[in-house]
Amino acid sequence: MQRFKLTIEYDGRPYVGWQRQENGPSVQAAIEEACRAFTHGEDIRVMGSGRTDAGVHALGQVAHLDLERDMTADGLQGALNHHLRREPISIVAVEAVSEEFNARFSAVKRHYIYKILNRRAPASFQKGLMWHVKPLLDHEAMHEAAQLLIGQHDFTTFRHVRCQAKSPVKTMDYLSIERVGEEVHIHAGARSFLHHQIRSITGTLKMVGEGNWSASDVKAALDARDRSRLGLNAPPDGLYFRKVEFET
Amino acid sequence: MQRFKLTIEYDGRPYVGWQRQENGPSVQAAIEEACRAFTHGEDIRVMGSGRTDAGVHALGQVAHLDLERDMTADGLQGALNHHLRREPISIVAVEAVSEEFNARFSAVKRHYIYKILNRRAPASFQKGLMWHVKPLLDHEAMHEAAQLLIGQHDFTTFRHVRCQAKSPVKTMDYLSIERVGEEVHIHAGARSFLHHQIRSITGTLKMVGEGNWSASDVKAALDARDRSRLGLNAPPDGLYFRKVEFET
Repeated sequence: MQRFKLTIEYDGRPYVGWQRQENGPSVQAAIEEACRAFTHGEDIRVMGSGRTDAGVHALGQVAHLDLERDMTADGLQGALNHHLRREPISIVAVEAVSEEFNARFSAVKRHYIYKILNRRAPASFQKGLMWHVKPLLDHEAMHEAAQLLIGQHDFTTFRHVRCQAKSPVKTMDYLSIERVGEEVHIHAGARSFLHHQIRSITGTLKMVGEGNWSASDVKAALDARDRSRLGLNAPPDGLYFRKVEFET
Repeated sequence: MQRFKLTIEYDGRPYVGWQRQENGPSVQAAIEEACRAFTHGEDIRVMGSGRTDAGVHALGQVAHLDLERDMTADGLQGALNHHLRREPISIVAVEAVSEEFNARFSAVKRHYIYKILNRRAPASFQKGLMWHVKPLLDHEAMHEAAQLLIGQHDFTTFRHVRCQAKSPVKTMDYLSIERVGEEVHIHAGARSFLHHQIRSITGTLKMVGEGNWSASDVKAALDARDRSRLGLNAPPDGLYFRKVEFET
């Protein structure tokens, strides 16, 4: 048996999310179907580093799978991409790894980016790929307020009510906001995140960028540890799972 | 009567092209329909700076239209974008201009960009938005060969057989090739282009980038003034009408 590490890029628009679900097509199910196709019926489980929600995208999701048959990393990449050719999913890298490697449990840092299209004119190409916000955002004020969320905090305010994590305490390694032409990008990194944490933070920072909330409003909302104090939850459209780092 | 200049961004994938045609939806027809909606039935003609083909995109197509009713540029932009909200078309700027202005005949320079996704892994987000080329392209060799096409030439080799331009002689102002991460971008500028000229040049430069053609093969093909000597015609997917400059 050989374990492989897959790096995966996908457009989340047509999917109910990464995870296999009863109610619609998922990225995990599409890749498991592709495995079934080239192995002529084997049930192969694909485990991801993170569960992205419906409509959330990935530039560098990582997953692992185990193969009984003898196959090179290149051969596996070609076979998967061939069977995924009708899906907006691309296996961008495949690597043979030891059985110690686990996409979920060996991950030590996860990086996300949230893209806001910040202009008066509506989206064209960017529909479903960015959050369209019309008023000009003060990205410097957003960045400043974001620094209050760095480090270890109880993020109950910034957590979905159905989040399954045992503890609401997480450590945010960095949270940086930059303007790139008509876009505002929010970069976030942590060992792991709560359900909806980045979208909740993004919605709140948008209120800061519009001048409706101050940095101290963000601090008060964090300190309240109360979901009802959340400013705003951003839509999934602009969120990308960018990269995963593993223990070495 | 007031004339307005529109700057338009669109995803060309769902359209038969810019121009109104019998055989399917066009960008021009969608904008004319939006005009009909907010004027409650007036027939308003929208004239573009260039006719993009089926599947070709625009970052800065320009068009003009004349309005009888009293409306500000901002009001027109809002009304058009409201009625275009289900289309991947965005009116990014509107400006009131004199009747001397003509989107087609006042244009003195047109800029295009052609995007190649140059990696082994297939496209995900980029499907229909870039041309996927697997072998690593030598973009420096492509740039060097491209310089042979700068200036005034008879571009018969690089012209669609049904091109309606009176003369095959055009003046290429610049043709630059750069690598941007996994992408290779071809930048082209001229007063005007022949039908399929950029796609024909792109296909030929791709053969150079793969090492199958030399710069002197490109020169020989140009000098032959013979469409059958064309290396390859690139698909519409990667082509974007980027910007138009007008006489002042």
